[in-house]
Formats: sequence, structure tokens, C-alpha cells
Amino acid sequence: MTDRLLAQLDFLRELDKAKNVLRQSHVTGTDRREDDAQHQWHVAVMALLLAEHAAEPVDVGRVVAMLLLHDVVEIDAGDVFVYDEAAQAGKRAAEERAADRLYGLLPPDQGAWARELWEEYEAKATPEARFAASIDRLQPLLQNLMTGGLGWRRNGVAADRVLRLNSSMEQGAPALWEHARALLEQAVDDGVLPRE
Amino acid sequence: MTDRLLAQLDFLRELDKAKNVLRQSHVTGTDRREDDAQHQWHVAVMALLLAEHAAEPVDVGRVVAMLLLHDVVEIDAGDVFVYDEAAQAGKRAAEERAADRLYGLLPPDQGAWARELWEEYEAKATPEARFAASIDRLQPLLQNLMTGGLGWRRNGVAADRVLRLNSSMEQGAPALWEHARALLEQAVDDGVLPRE
Repeated sequence: MTDRLLAQLDFLRELDKAKNVLRQSHVTGTDRREDDAQHQWHVAVMALLLAEHAAEPVDVGRVVAMLLLHDVVEIDAGDVFVYDEAAQAGKRAAEERAADRLYGLLPPDQGAWARELWEEYEAKATPEARFAASIDRLQPLLQNLMTGGLGWRRNGVAADRVLRLNSSMEQGAPALWEHARALLEQAVDDGVLPRE
Repeated sequence: MTDRLLAQLDFLRELDKAKNVLRQSHVTGTDRREDDAQHQWHVAVMALLLAEHAAEPVDVGRVVAMLLLHDVVEIDAGDVFVYDEAAQAGKRAAEERAADRLYGLLPPDQGAWARELWEEYEAKATPEARFAASIDRLQPLLQNLMTGGLGWRRNGVAADRVLRLNSSMEQGAPALWEHARALLEQAVDDGVLPRE
């Protein structure tokens, strides 16, 4: 039992580092970029409260666990901006190594469980993973809209790419995509999201 | 459905403000104090992985939901340092008003659910609430130990108060308290936690 608890606490202490992994979204009213701990909290709460909008019935507890852990690999592999296609292509190998090290800190049964949850999320082959991925798209989109498009503008991302990338939300949560698309179109009209 | 979704998103956007509510713990390796979003993420993951150490069997999904939302009232009411006894005494009324406003943003059924979860947490009368409260004690304790006792030292908190306050952990998770107490005693011996 003691060795088991020590292993659990080693992993849980390591998670502190997620608070220093910065994303491209900003926290409203500040010049601070959002970090992975804040992001994973926000999406977990969103999943709890928006589960009724999933395309198919989902095990909400599983979605929440998946979202609480989906970016843990970025502690080692770093955050790769979702619109940076070149970097996206190279990130898989680094994330696999990160998963080996980080989930390897846990007792074997829990490490295997967490790793499997992450692989499920990455594969997008279950209703839970597709809904989780939709929430993971919706949160930064709302965050960008709340901060006047700051993350998009700082990175030169225009409307067609935002619409194309986020349309995958339709598979996991069609009603959320319908609403998000209307918000994006409004943002283009308002000049918050550059048309080109 | 649209009104319902708008209400849900109003609440979820408001949660962004938790990222600016600073606590007395620090993030390792930085001079930044931890915020409520980071804290609520960290404790939710801890509950997922430490549930086997609960004093009684718990519904883990309920504990996770409780911890994801337990400090939301601080968006309006602010964080009150757990060792500040005078401020602790006055905080309940402010938190009730905060709960009225914040949970009032949600559709009524979800607002009532979230409010009830928070009341359950505050009352510590169920195994889930007692285990959640134990995790909510353990996380800042580990955080303080990882940062060389920074939060304690900056606030002049000595060992006897830390031991007294955190001993309530024993009710919710005796094995975690046993380990935490040993860590605290070691911290006193190492000079990280002032004896007086």
C-alpha cells in the first residue's frame, strides 16, 4: 500500500507542471495565456454541464476523466498550436514518449487505465472521445471570442481555417457546432475574426 | 433548447474568472500563486486516482464533480486563507450570495444540482463530501511542501496549526492523513515548516 501511494503521489506532484504549460488562448481581462491546468478544468466542467448535447449518449464520468487528463502529455511534449500544421505532424512521437514517462509513474493498473483513456481520446473512435474532442474545440473558441479574438489575431489565423478546423465538432456535438458556427459568423461580421 | 444552451454557456463563460482568483499556495518553480482553476483541476485528478484511500466507499464521479465546482463561489466571494480564522467566520454569507448569482445563471435543474453539490460539500455529512474535503486539504499541503513551505512562511503559519487544521483529513481518508502527517513532521525536522 505504501509503495502504491508513493507512486500515486509522485504522479500527482508531477502534474503541478501542467500549470506552466501555456496555450495560445488568453484568460479574459489579462495578458496571461491560459495554461493546461486551467484548460483541463474548464473543459471538464463544460462536459459535465453540456453532456445532453452529445451526438450519442455518453458516459459522462468517462468523458470528464478523459478531459481531466487529455493534455497531461504536454508536460513533456509541450503545447502545439492546433493551427500549426507542421508542428502537429511531428507531435505524436513526443507525446508517446511523454505518456510512457508520465503514466509510468503511476501504479501499473492506474497507469494502464490512464494511458488507455488517452489513446481512446486520441483515436476519436468512441462517442465519449468524440464528445470530449468537441468540448476541447469549443472551449478555446469561446475563450478567443471572449478576448476579442486575441489568440487568432496574434497567430494570424483567419475565419476559413477556424471554421474548417472546428467543424469536426459536428460529429461529437452537432447542436454545439451549430451554435458555435453562428458565433463565428457573427465574429467575422464584427471584425473580431479576420475573414482572411 | 436554445435558451437552455445560452444559459449553460453564460455560466461556463463566467467560470473563466476562476483563473484570476489567487490562492496562498504557489506553483512550483515560479513566483506565481496558484489560482482556483488550477487548484480545482488538481484536486479533481487527485480524487480520481486516490479514491481507494477514502474512509468509506465513495461515488467517485460525484466526488470529482463536487471538487470541480467546490470553489466556484470564490469568483464573487474571493479566496479566504484557510488559516485566517477571522475572515473564515465571515465568509459564509458572501458565499451564499455568490452561489445565488452564479448557479442562478444555469438552467434551473442544473443550477439546483450544482448548488446542492456545493451544499453537500460544505456540510461534510456524506462520505463523498468528507473525502473531497480531505483531498482539498492534501493538495495545498503537498503544494506547500513542494515549494519549500512558501505559502506557510509568507503567512507566518507554524506546524501546530498546520497539523491541527489538516487532521480533519483523518475522517475522509485516514491513510492519506497518516502519510501527510509523516511528511509534515519531516518538514518540521528539515526546517521547511516552522515549529512555532
